[in-house]
Amino acid sequence: MILKDWREEAKRRAAIKALENVKDGQIIGLGTGSTVAYAIRELGRLVKEEGLDIIGVPTSHQARLLALECGIPIYTLDECGGIDLAIDGADEVDGNLNLIKGMGAALAMEKVVDSLAEKLVIVVDRSKLSSVIGEKKPVPVEVLPPAVSFVKRRIESFGGKPVLRMAKRKDGPVVTDNGNFILDAHFGPIRDPVDMERKLKLIPGVVECGIFVNMADVVYVGHEKGVLILKSE
Amino acid sequence: MILKDWREEAKRRAAIKALENVKDGQIIGLGTGSTVAYAIRELGRLVKEEGLDIIGVPTSHQARLLALECGIPIYTLDECGGIDLAIDGADEVDGNLNLIKGMGAALAMEKVVDSLAEKLVIVVDRSKLSSVIGEKKPVPVEVLPPAVSFVKRRIESFGGKPVLRMAKRKDGPVVTDNGNFILDAHFGPIRDPVDMERKLKLIPGVVECGIFVNMADVVYVGHEKGVLILKSE
Repeated sequence: MILKDWREEAKRRAAIKALENVKDGQIIGLGTGSTVAYAIRELGRLVKEEGLDIIGVPTSHQARLLALECGIPIYTLDECGGIDLAIDGADEVDGNLNLIKGMGAALAMEKVVDSLAEKLVIVVDRSKLSSVIGEKKPVPVEVLPPAVSFVKRRIESFGGKPVLRMAKRKDGPVVTDNGNFILDAHFGPIRDPVDMERKLKLIPGVVECGIFVNMADVVYVGHEKGVLILKSE
Repeated sequence: MILKDWREEAKRRAAIKALENVKDGQIIGLGTGSTVAYAIRELGRLVKEEGLDIIGVPTSHQARLLALECGIPIYTLDECGGIDLAIDGADEVDGNLNLIKGMGAALAMEKVVDSLAEKLVIVVDRSKLSSVIGEKKPVPVEVLPPAVSFVKRRIESFGGKPVLRMAKRKDGPVVTDNGNFILDAHFGPIRDPVDMERKLKLIPGVVECGIFVNMADVVYVGHEKGVLILKSE
């Protein structure tokens, strides 16, 4: 209980602090997950109470429903030529600002929105930090359902241990917003994430993988007493 | 009408000739399209009338329904550890046996099944031949629907001219068996197909692209008088 408390407060702190990047008039990519949710709620408050003029571009049903609930005007990706800023979460962040994302199963549209954004701001709590991605987390891989056995064997052929992600509030596997399955592929520390991203995405039947390299501009890390800011210069 | 006649006959001839690769007891990947359909129908006849013992692995709803109709026992990809032989069509075949596929919108599962097959046999009529792929056909690119504008711009940024494929028997765009859209990306001759395949597939939001390199083992090309066999030695 005490553990949970510091973490929720750390997430909230990182999310709120990250809003210092938001400017009036911006189009803002809205990531998915429990940390970004704090940012979306606060953006909604700023829109309603302080007249902040922004438009949100959600990366998932979760982000879209929450943005609507909070009164943030939204665009689909078809309606905007660009995105000024994206605020997104991550499941693991390493010392090169490489990310593993996808525990929320929204990795495919997150990668689209985050890669379109002029600036990508990541918000996490300190439990997500590691020295090299893969140390703590498997890589989520979104897969066309009929290809899942094939992709599993391909991932095993280069040393991964893929596990089909099962749902908790429905029977059977998790189905993503795009109608696909998720394999959580355990590799251990990933020394060459660019190569691993390519290897995974180039497997036939793979829709996207959760390795995000050379994308994050700044990472806000909430901890017990404040927020650490990671930025490569 | 005369044109159509020679072509249908040429397709049929190539498809029937390609069945010389089939052996009793094999698991056979069943491609999609009007040329492969001749092969599937003939396989069905051989199963029913001559006791041929094979199992088909379809690459699409079309192939699956046709195989069922023809009495070919079928497996899903989850049920088979491997595929002995795949018989598939193509929209363009060049002098290096590189292929453009996907006019039937089944490119994603075709790439899975074809890449799993021990041997890939392609059946086409001679109108599909060119010296280098891209000369005659655009590259079909399967895209997550909410990412379509983004992917379009990305493809344009390296010289492609993508066009959203519209359906003929439903309103709006074609929706693939996987629930996605197809962009037909015109490039002209593609000198480096390995690089182009990577570039396209690595775009966030792209599920698969229709460039098939280093996959075809032999190509059967039906023409007015017979069948040309292309094989790299």
